Amino acid sequence: MSSNRAIAYTGPGHVEVQDIPYPTFELQDGPGVNPANVGRALPHAAILKVVTTNICGSDQHMVRGRTTAPENLVLGHEITGEVIETGPGVEFIKEGDLCSVPFNIACGRCRNCKERLTGICLNVNPDRPGSAYGYVDMGGWVGGQAEYVLVPYADWNLLKFPDKDQAMEKILDLTMLSDIFPTGFHGAVTSGVGVGSTVYVAGAGPVGLAAAASAQLLGAAVVVVGDLNADRLEQARSFGCETIDVSKGDPGDQLEQLLGVPEVDCGIDAVGFEARGHGEGSSQEAPATVLNSLMTITRAGGGLGIPGLYVTGDPGGVDEAAQEGSLSLRLGLGWAKSHSFMTGQCPVMKYHRGLMMAILHDRVQIAKAVNATTVSLDEAPQAYADFDSGVAKKYVIDPHGLVG
Amino acid sequence: MSSNRAIAYTGPGHVEVQDIPYPTFELQDGPGVNPANVGRALPHAAILKVVTTNICGSDQHMVRGRTTAPENLVLGHEITGEVIETGPGVEFIKEGDLCSVPFNIACGRCRNCKERLTGICLNVNPDRPGSAYGYVDMGGWVGGQAEYVLVPYADWNLLKFPDKDQAMEKILDLTMLSDIFPTGFHGAVTSGVGVGSTVYVAGAGPVGLAAAASAQLLGAAVVVVGDLNADRLEQARSFGCETIDVSKGDPGDQLEQLLGVPEVDCGIDAVGFEARGHGEGSSQEAPATVLNSLMTITRAGGGLGIPGLYVTGDPGGVDEAAQEGSLSLRLGLGWAKSHSFMTGQCPVMKYHRGLMMAILHDRVQIAKAVNATTVSLDEAPQAYADFDSGVAKKYVIDPHGLVG
Amino acid sequence: MSSNRAIAYTGPGHVEVQDIPYPTFELQDGPGVNPANVGRALPHAAILKVVTTNICGSDQHMVRGRTTAPENLVLGHEITGEVIETGPGVEFIKEGDLCSVPFNIACGRCRNCKERLTGICLNVNPDRPGSAYGYVDMGGWVGGQAEYVLVPYADWNLLKFPDKDQAMEKILDLTMLSDIFPTGFHGAVTSGVGVGSTVYVAGAGPVGLAAAASAQLLGAAVVVVGDLNADRLEQARSFGCETIDVSKGDPGDQLEQLLGVPEVDCGIDAVGFEARGHGEGSSQEAPATVLNSLMTITRAGGGLGIPGLYVTGDPGGVDEAAQEGSLSLRLGLGWAKSHSFMTGQCPVMKYHRGLMMAILHDRVQIAKAVNATTVSLDEAPQAYADFDSGVAKKYVIDPHGLVG
Amino acid sequence: MSSNRAIAYTGPGHVEVQDIPYPTFELQDGPGVNPANVGRALPHAAILKVVTTNICGSDQHMVRGRTTAPENLVLGHEITGEVIETGPGVEFIKEGDLCSVPFNIACGRCRNCKERLTGICLNVNPDRPGSAYGYVDMGGWVGGQAEYVLVPYADWNLLKFPDKDQAMEKILDLTMLSDIFPTGFHGAVTSGVGVGSTVYVAGAGPVGLAAAASAQLLGAAVVVVGDLNADRLEQARSFGCETIDVSKGDPGDQLEQLLGVPEVDCGIDAVGFEARGHGEGSSQEAPATVLNSLMTITRAGGGLGIPGLYVTGDPGGVDEAAQEGSLSLRLGLGWAKSHSFMTGQCPVMKYHRGLMMAILHDRVQIAKAVNATTVSLDEAPQAYADFDSGVAKKYVIDPHGLVG
Repeated sequence: MSSNRAIAYTGPGHVEVQDIPYPTFELQDGPGVNPANVGRALPHAAILKVVTTNICGSDQHMVRGRTTAPENLVLGHEITGEVIETGPGVEFIKEGDLCSVPFNIACGRCRNCKERLTGICLNVNPDRPGSAYGYVDMGGWVGGQAEYVLVPYADWNLLKFPDKDQAMEKILDLTMLSDIFPTGFHGAVTSGVGVGSTVYVAGAGPVGLAAAASAQLLGAAVVVVGDLNADRLEQARSFGCETIDVSKGDPGDQLEQLLGVPEVDCGIDAVGFEARGHGEGSSQEAPATVLNSLMTITRAGGGLGIPGLYVTGDPGGVDEAAQEGSLSLRLGLGWAKSHSFMTGQCPVMKYHRGLMMAILHDRVQIAKAVNATTVSLDEAPQAYADFDSGVAKKYVIDPHGLVG
Repeated sequence: MSSNRAIAYTGPGHVEVQDIPYPTFELQDGPGVNPANVGRALPHAAILKVVTTNICGSDQHMVRGRTTAPENLVLGHEITGEVIETGPGVEFIKEGDLCSVPFNIACGRCRNCKERLTGICLNVNPDRPGSAYGYVDMGGWVGGQAEYVLVPYADWNLLKFPDKDQAMEKILDLTMLSDIFPTGFHGAVTSGVGVGSTVYVAGAGPVGLAAAASAQLLGAAVVVVGDLNADRLEQARSFGCETIDVSKGDPGDQLEQLLGVPEVDCGIDAVGFEARGHGEGSSQEAPATVLNSLMTITRAGGGLGIPGLYVTGDPGGVDEAAQEGSLSLRLGLGWAKSHSFMTGQCPVMKYHRGLMMAILHDRVQIAKAVNATTVSLDEAPQAYADFDSGVAKKYVIDPHGLVG
Repeated sequence: MSSNRAIAYTGPGHVEVQDIPYPTFELQDGPGVNPANVGRALPHAAILKVVTTNICGSDQHMVRGRTTAPENLVLGHEITGEVIETGPGVEFIKEGDLCSVPFNIACGRCRNCKERLTGICLNVNPDRPGSAYGYVDMGGWVGGQAEYVLVPYADWNLLKFPDKDQAMEKILDLTMLSDIFPTGFHGAVTSGVGVGSTVYVAGAGPVGLAAAASAQLLGAAVVVVGDLNADRLEQARSFGCETIDVSKGDPGDQLEQLLGVPEVDCGIDAVGFEARGHGEGSSQEAPATVLNSLMTITRAGGGLGIPGLYVTGDPGGVDEAAQEGSLSLRLGLGWAKSHSFMTGQCPVMKYHRGLMMAILHDRVQIAKAVNATTVSLDEAPQAYADFDSGVAKKYVIDPHGLVG
Repeated sequence: MSSNRAIAYTGPGHVEVQDIPYPTFELQDGPGVNPANVGRALPHAAILKVVTTNICGSDQHMVRGRTTAPENLVLGHEITGEVIETGPGVEFIKEGDLCSVPFNIACGRCRNCKERLTGICLNVNPDRPGSAYGYVDMGGWVGGQAEYVLVPYADWNLLKFPDKDQAMEKILDLTMLSDIFPTGFHGAVTSGVGVGSTVYVAGAGPVGLAAAASAQLLGAAVVVVGDLNADRLEQARSFGCETIDVSKGDPGDQLEQLLGVPEVDCGIDAVGFEARGHGEGSSQEAPATVLNSLMTITRAGGGLGIPGLYVTGDPGGVDEAAQEGSLSLRLGLGWAKSHSFMTGQCPVMKYHRGLMMAILHDRVQIAKAVNATTVSLDEAPQAYADFDSGVAKKYVIDPHGLVG
């Protein structure tokens, strides 16, 4: 029980499987651990045997070397697992419980957690509000692309599945509850999607596809997904979305052909700061492209949900402004159209229970929508490379061979 | 063009087809017209050739003699039609437009309309807030189970379908936008239905079925419908609902078998004041049964949506309390569970556009859910009788043979 | 440190000061303790030296013998105190912190707590959702009208005041944060009070006065308070409310004189199940009076906030229906007016931080509004008697003489 | 009755009193009238004798030559007046009614109006959603800084004061209902201000002061106003605001001194696109200053309300980006803090009735807060000049000498 293997970042473009320590009820020093967190006692934590743990598009920012992530940082914030040990402060979660772990770590005791803003918990990251497992500048909580992982504040954070056997049958759907399904759903909700809405999702990566599936679940009349990648657009069409190839130009004209009008009710940015241009500019990074495009094609009074990640510092940014996280936005246009802009990490706990119910009762096929594809821990480095090449897959690591 | 035929109430248990005047841009005296409304100028009105007009459960209260409706009252408040003439004050609605008519008549100029509370418009009914076509004590607006009907404040009230041909193909779905689809949807929304909710709908008549379909459209995980009528329960199962036969006892036990717990997140009362008892009491009218049952089976913190009609006076009520619209409610139980209770006419205009979009884009099959069944004007009296006998059908009158 | 003195209920009409055990980090057996709670380990708890603890109108229901409260039940759920010891599971609350204790006990780990519904926590009361200190059928948590009290789940429940000296200066205001200020505020919020609203508050006891002060804080244009008790009405006038003496008849006529219309936008029931009739009936208990009156005088589209307590069982009720918590409500009238009815315990944690800020920055004088009056522990039995006689005072017990 | 005098823009830096046509029930051609609007029939309109009409900061953008406003454009969109004639389509508004005119012109018949988004009405401006009186690119509706003005869709747009005499006594308060009071209130509401909030308002011009007064009315604990202008800061202090002189540096440090923390719950931008830098940069225009500053000083999870105007084109902008309404925003920072950004014209009709009630019942002194100062029509050009120089006054034109 004392061994543990995990995926670690080892420098731009590289990840590898490493032996790492088995979790303990105290936060140990290590790569990326904030000094103020070293030695922190964690009686409220649980140790999980990881059943599934997914590779996320936001992991790629680190692996591409677009951040200050230190070498040997253990990755992984999309975790589902079985509780195998609990600290003395854990009261309701029990050994044997099969649970989804929200990627945002939250204490359940601060003002923000009490207001359901668990994406910006005040007590887990000494640097700033908000935290996550296995992520740069997030306090140093060890990542979960591993055999075992520690989850602090287990009674608060963990979502227990009601029936283990039933859950294992739908595990490829349920594994999406840790991040991308709620994150896509949050994008849809904050953009104002309701019954009968027309929706445009920028980006057909896993979060974009999850946002599209979420919009359908919320009753949207039409969901249009835009991307540069033909495979990913094909994936979007596989579950009933309309699609737009933005390499062929700004989405407005294509929207008009689809909808009869060049605008939608709701716009979702599932791309973030590594956006590329539209049309002829699509080979170049142009970080404001998506948001400016959404202002053009979202109707007056509409909303923009922005689950795509924008960062406070991007050493690899295209220019000085981008490097400090500044974008040249046509806010004048957005203002004239009374747009709202909703940003930030998804507070997973606000949504995961309802989405779990929708999965368990067959109301949504999220694994199929994002093309969930299982790999072993040893295959994970290759999966990182394939994902980076743009394949239309969502990789799910199965460290113990439990999913098959 | 100057003739008109319509369904009129002629006494308890009776309706018949009558010749009535062709509409004019002034409200004429007639059965049930409030004296203060006689002679009212209606330059803002449009005259519609009725394409479809449905028989509603609330019409039955009048036809059963449970109200003070006068003889020869022209019935019908579920209307869809083509505009054939507009008054001089109509600016945006045009001849030829095919439109849904919200059953609540609203002025679009009073405080309540400005706040989207069109179910309680202050300017159309001299007796009290709120009005409807062809209904007792609602101001005297002539009913629309007719060949032609006048719609006041046409620019405000009418929902134009974007494409006539497309609309005629889905006319049996779109005809439900005038009342039962938004009414059921309002019940679902006000009970708090969201993605992943478990929902119980009391009553499998058309409004109950519409509430169930609405709950699905809103992303509910499970929708359970309860009724005494086996055919209607079968109809509910036809589109994926679970069902409970309340003649076999209180729903709690049966819910526990279905869900593993005896409670749901959201309760919807689609029955109203003519409720009968559960279990052995099911042969008798017991007006508080549904609401008391919902308090028992709705979880603490849950909501009760009450689209079912409760009235201020019911001359045929089972006792003195019922006759003045009083019910013996276990409010102590509801209070202990922090329940909310949302009542009243559905403000159709809040929902009909989004629901139209969901229909036009094939996100919902409401006609199928309620078993829409077309009849001619001359067949309508028989349809009234059949509906009253409890058949699992929603009757749609097709006065000009346009639907076939 | 091992002694403790407290107020206990000793039979209908009687309370007395008793020696009780000093709190421990385990729930001990005692009067009213649910067997399933006996021996419960409480490492997450804090022990507080009580600075202030108020007598509540809901305590009176027990003391009047209107409940099944056992003899020697220690009373008191309105508690403010200084932390003097914390269990090993407490991380953020520290010795020396001066804190407000929400009257509802909540675990901070269940579905309802995560949804901010702390009034119906699922983990603290084995009988049903929701709990409170020193209250019948609420799980058996020892009351806080005492020198010392134990607060479970301290990191979750406690609201720490930012500065102790500043807090002691405003302690008579801050002591209202444990119950009546948030409870009155919840009544105002759930009835829909906003800037410019006209509001009627039924009942000028402390909760009614707190609801009135809350409505003002929320920007209400006019707040009208109705009661039978002249002193309490005078108290309401002292901070700018209009008043109505309901012994002189139904409030509608008097409202019309005050406002020019016989209706208000929002109605608040701060009376509950021990209501008496209006006008000539005012000498008799008539539990449905307030709610039926509110339906009459609240405008169509308005809301009813119901912080007043309604119970599931009232052995002393006026008739069989009242004894099981049933009321004869004119729901037909409410339905015709599209009323909403919001019930239940106030989830204090949703509001107490904001209200604390309003107090600390002098935006509200709640102590003055409710006429806070300090007594010692030994004077508390007399204060109970005086409060029951209808004096316009809110009694604050000061067990250690810290307030003076 | 056929004469009319008005304030017209006659070129950069100049306005003058001109004779203009008396209004008719048809939109006549003239400076700035959209060709598609010429000859539009207006049977739904009312002609008002203007009682008060205010000079607005947004008028200044035109007068400074920062827009494409044509010469001889009649200015004025903040209008209060008495109805002296109504078109044949007006039913509820009557001659003699004293009314507030929302600055946004709305039809009351389009999708957006039906959804209460009257700031982006679809039917009044052929160029784009949204319109206003006397404003460039807004369709060509004649301004109201005049003796007489025409108000289209009078039944929908006009807010009638309940009592004329009472209204004339408070006319300097009520005149703020046409724009700045609701606009400031909208800024406060959309930034999330509630009871107990801490609020920072950027800009102490009339809209900023109105936002500050609104935040107080909504129950804010502390309202801090920042500006470069000492007189305007003094004005903010006159009604209980804290102030920050941003010429002395970024507001964060000064906030920390005031509040103990360098952040507020809610940030309001009442400056818009003509912003200047903070600290040493305060002599230069720097359009992104305010928004970037608000992201720094608004807490994680907080909201930004943006009533300050941002434009789609600004010929006089400091650089090419500014000229097309683009700003270099630190969105990465806002995203890390989960900020929301709410933009656009205030939909006045959502708020004006409640704010009127608050004024009539003495809950707010908005005239005093913004230092309302009355001038005649002939004095208006001088008032424009004084306002542009930065005096802490809100000028109210009194064209008929009715206010005195």
